[in-house]
Amino acid sequence: MTVQKALVVGTGLIGTSVALALREKGVAIHLSDADVHAVRLAEELGAGRQWTGEEVDLAVIAVPPHLVGDRLAELQKQGSARAYTDVASVKAGPIADAERLGCDLTSYVPGHPLAGRERSGPAAARADLFLGRPWALCPRPETDAGAVRRVRELVSLCGAEAVIVGAGDHDAAVALVSHAPHVAASAVAARLAGGDDVALSLAGQGLRDVTRIAAGDPGLWRRILSGNAFPVAEVLDRIAADLAATASALRSGDLDDVTELLRRGVEGHGRIPGKHGGPVRDFAVVQVVLRDRPGELARLFNAAELAEVNIEDVRLEHSTGLPVGVAEVSVRQEDTGRLAEALRFHGWHVPPVPGGCR
Amino acid sequence: MTVQKALVVGTGLIGTSVALALREKGVAIHLSDADVHAVRLAEELGAGRQWTGEEVDLAVIAVPPHLVGDRLAELQKQGSARAYTDVASVKAGPIADAERLGCDLTSYVPGHPLAGRERSGPAAARADLFLGRPWALCPRPETDAGAVRRVRELVSLCGAEAVIVGAGDHDAAVALVSHAPHVAASAVAARLAGGDDVALSLAGQGLRDVTRIAAGDPGLWRRILSGNAFPVAEVLDRIAADLAATASALRSGDLDDVTELLRRGVEGHGRIPGKHGGPVRDFAVVQVVLRDRPGELARLFNAAELAEVNIEDVRLEHSTGLPVGVAEVSVRQEDTGRLAEALRFHGWHVPPVPGGCR
Repeated sequence: MTVQKALVVGTGLIGTSVALALREKGVAIHLSDADVHAVRLAEELGAGRQWTGEEVDLAVIAVPPHLVGDRLAELQKQGSARAYTDVASVKAGPIADAERLGCDLTSYVPGHPLAGRERSGPAAARADLFLGRPWALCPRPETDAGAVRRVRELVSLCGAEAVIVGAGDHDAAVALVSHAPHVAASAVAARLAGGDDVALSLAGQGLRDVTRIAAGDPGLWRRILSGNAFPVAEVLDRIAADLAATASALRSGDLDDVTELLRRGVEGHGRIPGKHGGPVRDFAVVQVVLRDRPGELARLFNAAELAEVNIEDVRLEHSTGLPVGVAEVSVRQEDTGRLAEALRFHGWHVPPVPGGCR
Repeated sequence: MTVQKALVVGTGLIGTSVALALREKGVAIHLSDADVHAVRLAEELGAGRQWTGEEVDLAVIAVPPHLVGDRLAELQKQGSARAYTDVASVKAGPIADAERLGCDLTSYVPGHPLAGRERSGPAAARADLFLGRPWALCPRPETDAGAVRRVRELVSLCGAEAVIVGAGDHDAAVALVSHAPHVAASAVAARLAGGDDVALSLAGQGLRDVTRIAAGDPGLWRRILSGNAFPVAEVLDRIAADLAATASALRSGDLDDVTELLRRGVEGHGRIPGKHGGPVRDFAVVQVVLRDRPGELARLFNAAELAEVNIEDVRLEHSTGLPVGVAEVSVRQEDTGRLAEALRFHGWHVPPVPGGCR
């Protein structure tokens, strides 16, 4: 193991979670934060102990993007570590800062674990925050191979999957799959703020899904978006253009363009990787009508277990007004018949399994 | 019961589901469809028997929106029923057609059950399709009270909740809470069609939620959108304007406007009614780390039942690459502590319950 001693600079959600994950693998962790209370809390959570300046194998800089460069410069001046990485959600800015500040770029491997949460602070930290999540790494031609090896070890010790990508490509990618979709969800949800109660009473599960991430903290997202402003703006402009074009196509009655956008939407949705990296639509959905009483879902999953069917996902369709709901249970295609049969046997109403899958 | 004999015209998903629901309540059902095969299939499903022209208490016109007026005119000419309703997803168009065709508007109560599905046809029909769902009714000043009473009875026999709303308000409402959000989800998903695999590999659950409804059938949605073109176009223009304004604000570095949109998004999201009509954020989320093995969820729900905690919703956060996931279990605020304690007792890893709720 090339990482025996690590320093975590910045004991917020991500930094403290990294510390907890490394502790579980026996790595000695030193903690540092401008906020002494944050360090103390992280210590109390068992994340490690306060750093007193000793050299470590790897320094993980877990501070806001605009501070990464300064921190890296300070740490390198003190010769604090053999290798350095950061966890900022954008990469081009911090790298530019590091260059401007004359940092040693051979020992610095820019990184970004994709483990978003709607809460922050050390108290929300989890050792398993990164389990199975992608962790982007943006080494450059001049980056030292030993430094890359140490940071790759960090990623695997945290149970994450390293994804090597250029900094510019990374920022464009997160704008596409995370930042711009968040703004779009906010824009859809913002329309509802002015809607009347009758209109809202006609809302269904689809609207809940589209707008769920819009509940995220505006202050946090303001910082995220400002750090990736141009790539996000580019994606938003294209989405805005598609929506404006659809609006005028609807007014002019030229529905072919509308259908084309819907078709591209189906295609794009199909490209999102699902559980275990497989495409989401590999799973078929079995619907089950549920009574809203304690243990109903337990009985459902027990029945699935008896039928030796592994449930890949479950979604409850809320019913407004009545104590009943529909569970959409995702299982492997070949299991749908057996599961439906088993559930019907146990008395559930299971509508015919459709050919169409998620 | 003022509805003893009913006629269902159009044996697709909605019409056949209405027939099945009424059959369960002992209503005699007559079926009619331009497609003889569709009628035969509905008959085989136990939805009723083919109509031979006798008069009924209520005729439910379950044909595409642009055909509602014609069928209503035909049926009224034959004096087929005492009251008439339709189930089209838009209301202004069919009513205008009915007026143009000189239909009797006193016996016609325009309706729209909000029970969307991503599949269609009689084979997908379910007697419980409308359970707990809102069902919009758009009576007019001249509408006969007896006709409204019969259609209200239809709604309650189907287990749905009647929502009285003007036709124009209805069309604007579904544009706001259903049609425009669908197009927005398609526009976000459409961006992914051109994204590279590395970018897609960085996708998370948030993107899956935002784009889930974009998987809907483009042909079906083309028809839905064309029937509500102007109200949908109006909402889309506003969303497009907000996104374009956000893009230029990001480029100019004026983040206050961006924060304001995010803030309005949080406010709008909070207005979406949740299960049993209560606001979604009444529930707190307890997170549990799950191993991906048969019965894991059953054990989880059994533990919840033993703790006498009723689970209101559950969402599985997919892990790409590793056979592990995080279940986000929504329960009443006051139950979070008891549930977390019970699950930890049974050996699950349950991170500290955050103050922030869904």
